[in-house]
Amino acid sequence: MRTHIECFPCFLRQTVIALNQLTDDPEVREKVMKAVLLVIGKADTSRPPAHTTTFIHRMIREVLEADPFGRIKHDYNEIALGLYPSLKQKVIRSDEPLQTAARLAIAGNVIDFGIFTSVDIEGSVSRALESPLSVDDYASFKRSVHEAENILYLLDNAGEIVFDRLLIEELTSLGKKVTAVVKGSPVLNDVTYEDASQTGLAGLCDVIDNGSDCIGTIMEWTSAGFRDEFSRADLIISKGQGNFETLAGTDKNIYFLFQAKCEVVSRELGRLLGSMILMRS
Amino acid sequence: MRTHIECFPCFLRQTVIALNQLTDDPEVREKVMKAVLLVIGKADTSRPPAHTTTFIHRMIREVLEADPFGRIKHDYNEIALGLYPSLKQKVIRSDEPLQTAARLAIAGNVIDFGIFTSVDIEGSVSRALESPLSVDDYASFKRSVHEAENILYLLDNAGEIVFDRLLIEELTSLGKKVTAVVKGSPVLNDVTYEDASQTGLAGLCDVIDNGSDCIGTIMEWTSAGFRDEFSRADLIISKGQGNFETLAGTDKNIYFLFQAKCEVVSRELGRLLGSMILMRS
Repeated sequence: MRTHIECFPCFLRQTVIALNQLTDDPEVREKVMKAVLLVIGKADTSRPPAHTTTFIHRMIREVLEADPFGRIKHDYNEIALGLYPSLKQKVIRSDEPLQTAARLAIAGNVIDFGIFTSVDIEGSVSRALESPLSVDDYASFKRSVHEAENILYLLDNAGEIVFDRLLIEELTSLGKKVTAVVKGSPVLNDVTYEDASQTGLAGLCDVIDNGSDCIGTIMEWTSAGFRDEFSRADLIISKGQGNFETLAGTDKNIYFLFQAKCEVVSRELGRLLGSMILMRS
Repeated sequence: MRTHIECFPCFLRQTVIALNQLTDDPEVREKVMKAVLLVIGKADTSRPPAHTTTFIHRMIREVLEADPFGRIKHDYNEIALGLYPSLKQKVIRSDEPLQTAARLAIAGNVIDFGIFTSVDIEGSVSRALESPLSVDDYASFKRSVHEAENILYLLDNAGEIVFDRLLIEELTSLGKKVTAVVKGSPVLNDVTYEDASQTGLAGLCDVIDNGSDCIGTIMEWTSAGFRDEFSRADLIISKGQGNFETLAGTDKNIYFLFQAKCEVVSRELGRLLGSMILMRS
């Protein structure tokens, strides 16, 4: 997916959100903002927006010498862990636990501080369980899960990872070998190994990192180890808009589970803003 | 009012809105967008956001050799003229026609293509007539009108000008000499002399231009003739957020009539987004 000019205001909005986590010093804020303008000025619009946001968040962390989202990630993991028992009950009591867990994983994708500053988790859960998905390739997803041995699960955000845990628990209970992928180092509110530990995922399945601080999965910036796992997997479950932006069109058996959170991606999909998506590549 | 970093994404959003009026050529759009990034990079944040938006819209018109808002201005004037007879009836039937006309002038300020891409005029009219204003200095405004001889009326947007006409008609019916001020040349959807002609305002009162293409009223960029009228006026009625940004704190008898359309201005006022304001300087 290419970058559209509608992404440019959003790049700056993300910068404001990141700055709001760390500093209210007007001089520092303006300095970072103007540094980010230079980054955006060099945006290669033939590449996905995730390229530019990767550079932006790298710049913000470098200039401020801090990770803007460290604390909020921890807090959202705790909030989501508080919801875990009731969500788990929804899965257990379901006639189709795999489907319920997949829908909850999509619901959890509402947690995204790149785009939202407040989050309606419960509304997102109801919507995912009670309304039809906007793209629903579940039947094919279910077949693919049953045929697969090695499943690579590309995680997305903190908080959301607890919802992913529910789906991964279903996959492992079906005897699948699941490898969950975190980022190699902090970027935005994306999960790293620390989040996998905090939320109990690390005890459930293999967790590897992709060797990168990129938004989504920008293949040439990932480690050889990750690329090896990626090519060997029978099935890839890809969470979030960043992974969709960067992996759509890749010649692998990928299912994208996410919410379309911006006009550009919604238009790309021909769906409404906020659509819930379970889509085969 | 100074520029906040929250204004930066909005600068780019305004650029996208302007480009959407004129071209869907991705190369041209990217070229303009990147030129605007350079303009924003030079923003003097000690000055109001209207400074930077003035430079941005000037740049867009220069690069594209066209006025992005010419056609939509004409259309919105026509739409508002269609509403004029029923709005006029509301003023005539009111117990306090000056107040009703002032509130309608504030209602009309919802028409603003710098900020919105669609407009709920009727909702805005109901809200202005049926709900309390968020800041309501009407009692003092009324006294000031009765005491004034020369009133300078700083117009804002196309479409909105028809709502201003209703207030100006009340002022002239009270025997006041009203001079309405348009922009010297096109900028955004701000009115020029053409709009005053199209909407019948030119036959009602003196119409002068401020000699400038600035958003709001940036005094040092206006003509000597305008500055002379400004200093001689007993009362200045200032429409819109741009004029508020650039004239707040000016040592004159000014009443600001507008809607707070962005978080930055709302926060500056300590009011909610969307608040309707009739405020003494």
